[in-house]
Amino acid sequence: MARIGATSAGGCNRQALTDLDRQGRDLFVRWAREAGCTIEIDEVGNIFAQRPGTDRDAPAVLAGSHLDTQATGGKYDGVYGVLAGLEVLRVLNENAVVTRAPVEVAVWTNEEGCRFAPAMLGSGVVSSTYTRDFAYAVEDKAGLRFRDELERIGYLGSRPAAPRPYAAMFEAHIEQGPILEKEGLTIGAVTGIQGAYWFDITFEGLSCHAGPTPMEMRRDPWSAAVPVMAGAFALARANGPWGRATIGDVRVEPGSRNTVPARVVVSIDIRHPDAATLETMVAGLHALVERECAAHGIFGQTAQVWHMPATAFDARLVERVVSAARRLGHSCMEIVSGAGHDSLHTAQFAPTTMIFVPCAGGLSHNEAEAATAADLAAGADVLLHAMLEEAA
Amino acid sequence: MARIGATSAGGCNRQALTDLDRQGRDLFVRWAREAGCTIEIDEVGNIFAQRPGTDRDAPAVLAGSHLDTQATGGKYDGVYGVLAGLEVLRVLNENAVVTRAPVEVAVWTNEEGCRFAPAMLGSGVVSSTYTRDFAYAVEDKAGLRFRDELERIGYLGSRPAAPRPYAAMFEAHIEQGPILEKEGLTIGAVTGIQGAYWFDITFEGLSCHAGPTPMEMRRDPWSAAVPVMAGAFALARANGPWGRATIGDVRVEPGSRNTVPARVVVSIDIRHPDAATLETMVAGLHALVERECAAHGIFGQTAQVWHMPATAFDARLVERVVSAARRLGHSCMEIVSGAGHDSLHTAQFAPTTMIFVPCAGGLSHNEAEAATAADLAAGADVLLHAMLEEAA
Ligand SMILES: NC(=O)NCCC(=O)O
Ligand SMILES: NC(=O)NCCC(=O)O
Repeated sequence: MARIGATSAGGCNRQALTDLDRQGRDLFVRWAREAGCTIEIDEVGNIFAQRPGTDRDAPAVLAGSHLDTQATGGKYDGVYGVLAGLEVLRVLNENAVVTRAPVEVAVWTNEEGCRFAPAMLGSGVVSSTYTRDFAYAVEDKAGLRFRDELERIGYLGSRPAAPRPYAAMFEAHIEQGPILEKEGLTIGAVTGIQGAYWFDITFEGLSCHAGPTPMEMRRDPWSAAVPVMAGAFALARANGPWGRATIGDVRVEPGSRNTVPARVVVSIDIRHPDAATLETMVAGLHALVERECAAHGIFGQTAQVWHMPATAFDARLVERVVSAARRLGHSCMEIVSGAGHDSLHTAQFAPTTMIFVPCAGGLSHNEAEAATAADLAAGADVLLHAMLEEAA
Repeated sequence: MARIGATSAGGCNRQALTDLDRQGRDLFVRWAREAGCTIEIDEVGNIFAQRPGTDRDAPAVLAGSHLDTQATGGKYDGVYGVLAGLEVLRVLNENAVVTRAPVEVAVWTNEEGCRFAPAMLGSGVVSSTYTRDFAYAVEDKAGLRFRDELERIGYLGSRPAAPRPYAAMFEAHIEQGPILEKEGLTIGAVTGIQGAYWFDITFEGLSCHAGPTPMEMRRDPWSAAVPVMAGAFALARANGPWGRATIGDVRVEPGSRNTVPARVVVSIDIRHPDAATLETMVAGLHALVERECAAHGIFGQTAQVWHMPATAFDARLVERVVSAARRLGHSCMEIVSGAGHDSLHTAQFAPTTMIFVPCAGGLSHNEAEAATAADLAAGADVLLHAMLEEAA
């Protein structure tokens, strides 16, 4: 799978609904068919591979994650959860295990959000967080639309993108953070996901010539944008150690070296696991924008692009993961996820939890992302046993 | 001319070597031919329209400027100097004036530098500041090359792009700054141009996930870039009122909302009319980059994209402009140009000066750029008389 979109720096660039995403999906579908599964594609391109149980009416037990990557992404983020699910199916087949409930593996569409914002869009439509038509209308930076790209790669399916009954959902994933490695532990039983907001802050000034215009005559968007950027980072640090602020992108218009910009658009991602603290950080950001814009005669406008509320997972399933890990002899701790995952959405309509394994240096969204074979195997082992107990 | 590339906000977007630039050039060539001129195009697309004198061997007297604009430019920057020159030719024709020396109007290629850096490239090749092949290899942001685009629009000429003897060169231009308007004067006799540097500063950190990565574990390029941006503006203010710093463009890689960037590239334009002060500002900027990068574990690299040294114009021609303005009853002052102009390059091989007229609010590189018909006529009047005295 990692060969599809492999980058020279050892990572993967297989962004959602690209030709490479199609190749990744095709490979998964082939492997799932070889494992005897039926395949269903829904209206937003989510793929469901099902291994039947003995009870036709029993709700399925699902393992799911995503195959899309960041532009400079790694080989494990998302992909691991899908392939661990596939491995569960193969182990069941090899051992001729018969389950009561069906066992299913899901590939969710557009989890990363780097090409099409918001992130976790495919699972978000299924959880009714977004409407199907909202997702269809989302555009990438080049103005290409989600629905058109989905159709183009041949994954516009007919199964309704709506909640179904599931007995349990598990998502195996690399931690994408440093905690398990620092603690020297193998398995994280994920109790929930911290909250996040994405904002686009537009600073409007007045474009003018870089040479003859005295500094004191300018209405330079940077005069407000630079202190807001500095202030956003300070806000995160002031709410440490869990406060986070990231400026992932900035757009400058007209973007000419010898022209003071008319407009600067700063994308800010802020996070905190405590909902009240997160709201305080957001209020602080808004106050900062207001103050700096007023002080410098800049017109500021903050658009909310996405909000992911802090979410708790199913306590019973968390306990299943903990006890499976103990039984299998893998060290384990309860942990909060710093990143959003499709499990945030599935938790809205089905009991859900996640299984984390360590990644080298806590590094993710980076081509150097790495995890050991032993840890990945341990995570898949815990996934197998947790799923089996639910499906038995 | 302003209809070609007209924007809805009343400005012009007629960037160098685009189809619209071709249309503007075609219109100028038609007008110049109608005025009885011969046309020559040189190897970098500069256009020379000549009205012959009685002495075949006398070096010509030239009026020149440019027709290309910023992406969100005005109707006057550059265009005024070309059309004022054309008006001089027409007035000479209408009054059947015979001159000893030829009178010439030049349209220089790619003055603005917003599409192809450096600015003032066409005149820069003629002055031997750049080689022809350097200019040919320059690329725009989309990777299109100067030579290919020049050929595509049909302005790759055969006249060598090299210095020729000229008796005098004048460039009429809007001031692009606030001084004439503030002083309530009509004509600026330009004594020289302030110095400028363009730098691209690359800040390299380590991309990672916006959610799970604690602030203190990050190597975020912004941790150095933000204080450098703030520091660059402070440097300009500390060297006021003539110190200038502009951040016209910023590139963020990979440019994903939920990824701490691997790399941020900041374009900085800094200027000062005093060469020694400008060098002090540059040294200050380098020290700032070094200090902030070291403090935050960021790899910083500063590339010089362009340097325009502070340049003095020809004292005799400046005096010609002053005395012509006085004689014609237009108020006048000597002034330094805050912007670079093709005259900076022509001053390297021929006596050169410029004639400034006020522009509303000192605003330029903005679609709202404006100048009064009376001031524009006064400038053209001074241009006519100064050229006539040289060509008589
Ligand atoms: N796991 C992951 O990379 N999710 C993307 C959504 C987010 O930004 O948290
Ligand atoms: N006049 C003008 O806009 N020149 C562009 C070169 C510069 O940046 O000074």
